[in-house]
Amino acid sequence: MTKLRIAGGQVLRPDASVERADVLVDSESGDIAAVGDPDEVPEGDETLDAEDGLVMPGLVNAHTHAAMTLLRGYADDKELDAWLQEDIWPVEAEFTPEDVRAGTELGLLEMIRSGTTAFADMYFHEEEVVEAVEDAGLRARLGYGIVTVGKDEEGAREDCEQSLEVAREFDGAADGRVKTAFMPHSLTTVGEEYLREFVPEAREDGIALHYHANETTDEVDPIVEEEGQRPLDYARELDMTDESDFVAHGVHLDSTEIDLLAETGTSVVHCPASNMKLASGMAPVQKLLDAGVTVGLGTDGTASNNDLDVFDEMRDAAMVGKLAENDASAVPAESVVRMATEGSASALGFDSGRIEEGANADLAVVDLDAAHLTPHHDLVSHLVYAARGSDVRHTLCDGAVLMRDREVLTLDAEAVRERAERRAAAAVERAE
Amino acid sequence: MTKLRIAGGQVLRPDASVERADVLVDSESGDIAAVGDPDEVPEGDETLDAEDGLVMPGLVNAHTHAAMTLLRGYADDKELDAWLQEDIWPVEAEFTPEDVRAGTELGLLEMIRSGTTAFADMYFHEEEVVEAVEDAGLRARLGYGIVTVGKDEEGAREDCEQSLEVAREFDGAADGRVKTAFMPHSLTTVGEEYLREFVPEAREDGIALHYHANETTDEVDPIVEEEGQRPLDYARELDMTDESDFVAHGVHLDSTEIDLLAETGTSVVHCPASNMKLASGMAPVQKLLDAGVTVGLGTDGTASNNDLDVFDEMRDAAMVGKLAENDASAVPAESVVRMATEGSASALGFDSGRIEEGANADLAVVDLDAAHLTPHHDLVSHLVYAARGSDVRHTLCDGAVLMRDREVLTLDAEAVRERAERRAAAAVERAE
Repeated sequence: MTKLRIAGGQVLRPDASVERADVLVDSESGDIAAVGDPDEVPEGDETLDAEDGLVMPGLVNAHTHAAMTLLRGYADDKELDAWLQEDIWPVEAEFTPEDVRAGTELGLLEMIRSGTTAFADMYFHEEEVVEAVEDAGLRARLGYGIVTVGKDEEGAREDCEQSLEVAREFDGAADGRVKTAFMPHSLTTVGEEYLREFVPEAREDGIALHYHANETTDEVDPIVEEEGQRPLDYARELDMTDESDFVAHGVHLDSTEIDLLAETGTSVVHCPASNMKLASGMAPVQKLLDAGVTVGLGTDGTASNNDLDVFDEMRDAAMVGKLAENDASAVPAESVVRMATEGSASALGFDSGRIEEGANADLAVVDLDAAHLTPHHDLVSHLVYAARGSDVRHTLCDGAVLMRDREVLTLDAEAVRERAERRAAAAVERAE
Repeated sequence: MTKLRIAGGQVLRPDASVERADVLVDSESGDIAAVGDPDEVPEGDETLDAEDGLVMPGLVNAHTHAAMTLLRGYADDKELDAWLQEDIWPVEAEFTPEDVRAGTELGLLEMIRSGTTAFADMYFHEEEVVEAVEDAGLRARLGYGIVTVGKDEEGAREDCEQSLEVAREFDGAADGRVKTAFMPHSLTTVGEEYLREFVPEAREDGIALHYHANETTDEVDPIVEEEGQRPLDYARELDMTDESDFVAHGVHLDSTEIDLLAETGTSVVHCPASNMKLASGMAPVQKLLDAGVTVGLGTDGTASNNDLDVFDEMRDAAMVGKLAENDASAVPAESVVRMATEGSASALGFDSGRIEEGANADLAVVDLDAAHLTPHHDLVSHLVYAARGSDVRHTLCDGAVLMRDREVLTLDAEAVRERAERRAAAAVERAE
């Protein structure tokens, strides 16, 4: 089978209009071969039913730590520092490669179910993530997260080298569905000397960067104090604000930093749920969009969310975007859908996020015949304010069907859930 | 059949603990007859399967305008005033009794699907809401919403009398599942002279009040200016802060007003999604809880949400509660579940919201075997941060099963959706 026709549905186009159209997917190349009036789209070898459905670009989760699904609900309602040091880090320290594999697979299962087709992952034992992504069929940008604080020089250098190695080794894996990046955890958790040494090494090989930036005032204030400049000025000085780079959070940004992001082309991944749950603050999303910054959307890990449902994240982005601006017209639904599709895809360097001939055939079909999606005044509004991951009927990535009629084809859902449950319990037991 | 046994599940108890237990429901009285260790709970005449599920109190949506489902997605991302005057009110003016019936039934369908068993409704043509509630099997506290601004004296008095009449006529309807209240829309949309005349009439008949209070600064500031006092002081002077009364929103409250609410026993219904979407602000929920105020949870109408899913509302309450306090430990999951069950039920004067012998058998069973609810470290956390309405398997109210295995028994889902779609389109067409 080489051509799959997604037939009978409405289709969300790149200009945010919705029209009755069919989509022809080339399963060999993994691209969209045609989209348009059902009479004008060529027949396919097979048909996927989209009647009463909306065909939309697969959602792109541009910042997460997928294996943290093992810690979903393990520790909530605590201050960031105590939460990390007392709860999260001690259990993560116990994670074996098999644990990371199990947690990642649970994350991938959840993503496929909720229409997410690509994601960025920062974690460790990333070779397990690569294999899991290869098998499950998604698209990913991934890397090893470096933390040098609390480590001696040898350990710190090992971490940096590990991150470079992962970036070099796995770029292009899974038939090109995997890309990589060099991933220092943040500007405060990685020492300046290591950034000065290893960022140029990454640049030499054309490797992009992903890191947490300006997430909390506790992170921003020490940099301002010690470096005498704003965090992103410090990052720019370290050559960490390239057009290919993407930073997570960007909550506490001043106007010069917003301009810097726009000028350099560095993307920002907005993580509204995590920023609320950890009381980090409200990112100036409308201001970033107005300045022309590429903004994507991310769930962050499930310990601070607590799910990987990008529909939830879209709703949160619209909601908190209005609060942040004290303006109900800020961060409208159309901008939010764009963030979760084209914005995130662009941040991650994927030619996905829009339904157009030639783009990656990364798609989700959303069931519209639900009480909570009735009536159909405005389907773009519904995607943001009323739909949820469980409304997704089919998920495709790279031209392949990963979920058909709510049945995930590339993972054994029951086995994945059972393994994750068992490994999570065991890791917690070892840590406690 | 008189006794229904909900068997095989875990049960959320009033102290927020979760235990393996069965629940015996007396379908005649509508109460919980027993709850406890499966070996100690008497056999029932029929069994409802709760295996791999969590039995929880039915959620209580303590502030909504159910028929506004017809306007879901009709107008978003606009300032409150323009939104009401240009979009919402012109279409609402076109609503016939049949439209209100159709919109309410769509709302009830959505509520049953998402585990909500009771709600408060403020709207018009409430006789239609009463009938819809009677047929669908839910529990409701309802009333006619009075607006006198923009009306002549005759129209204003008619509105007030209508609200009194609805409160008198329908209290105790639907076998006691319907209670009523006198519902002036707010302290600024109803003239002082009418409040001074009609509130005492309501009190004489022992009728409680429900109204919007302190929702936006645009509403608070004029009262402070004209009356020289805070809105709730003004309300108290008008005898509108009785223990039986419940106010919606309570976003902009100062500390004396929080004390006033605690002293008088007036309940507050927190509506976080609406407050974010309309950029109204962040309610001081943790402060209200600390002061001992009864706090419930409401979705508000679906034009400002855009759904009736109280699971979403719980997540929003926890999230925005932390932002408001700049404290990740504020408004923890346990408090939020309590708000959405006992808190809301208490605000509405129903003996529901807790699983205990003798309480109303208003229950929901949540499926736990989903990827996004794995692993099971903490089920209370899951209810708030990861579950959604679509995870509900069974819904019961007053001892009767309203949804079994995701099939709604008391409404014809397809007919309800079709009717709502058609009536929404026609009302919009008439208005435009």
